[in-house]
Amino acid sequence: MILEVAQIRIKAGQAAPFEAAYRQAQQHLRAAEGYVSHELRRCLEQADQYLLLVHWRRLEDHTVGFRGSRHFQEWRGLIGSFFDGPPSVVHYLSLDDQAGAQASQKLA
Amino acid sequence: MILEVAQIRIKAGQAAPFEAAYRQAQQHLRAAEGYVSHELRRCLEQADQYLLLVHWRRLEDHTVGFRGSRHFQEWRGLIGSFFDGPPSVVHYLSLDDQAGAQASQKLA
Repeated sequence: MILEVAQIRIKAGQAAPFEAAYRQAQQHLRAAEGYVSHELRRCLEQADQYLLLVHWRRLEDHTVGFRGSRHFQEWRGLIGSFFDGPPSVVHYLSLDDQAGAQASQKLA
Repeated sequence: MILEVAQIRIKAGQAAPFEAAYRQAQQHLRAAEGYVSHELRRCLEQADQYLLLVHWRRLEDHTVGFRGSRHFQEWRGLIGSFFDGPPSVVHYLSLDDQAGAQASQKLA
């Protein structure tokens, strides 16, 4: 399982409408193929900074499947206008999954 | 509950010994007052980049309690020498906890 970590900075003073839009937008994330779970968190130290954590079954479920889907269009359509620049997005593998993933790559 | 998010960059080529040291060091994190759970993840896009996620009961359990404790000395003693510069550490509040936290601050 892959963890998507997206750092999202929103425009100043937009926290309440962004969070309301996010609550509506979540359904489009949940509907994606390979979606497992997600949470959005607000930064304590930096105003207007959020962290979106999404568990995906496989990397491609996010980078290919979701990003190429109408669910992504809907999701971004609802929350994208609040972003102050493009989010920084990276993916992380669990240390416990690593041995398995490396073994699978060798077999593939 | 607070989520600590630490981005850790390690020295090139040190993944295996760092991960071994981390497996040993975890016990000192788990022993901390206010510790709830944690996981370490390895970045897919950037070599030598890790993400440490730690759930704490309260912010001060991390910033005051843990950092001022012998557990932190032990933890850092085991893994600190692998770091390529100081980790970037921030804290995030769950959106669902926010209303409660704001209410508590007003009452405090």
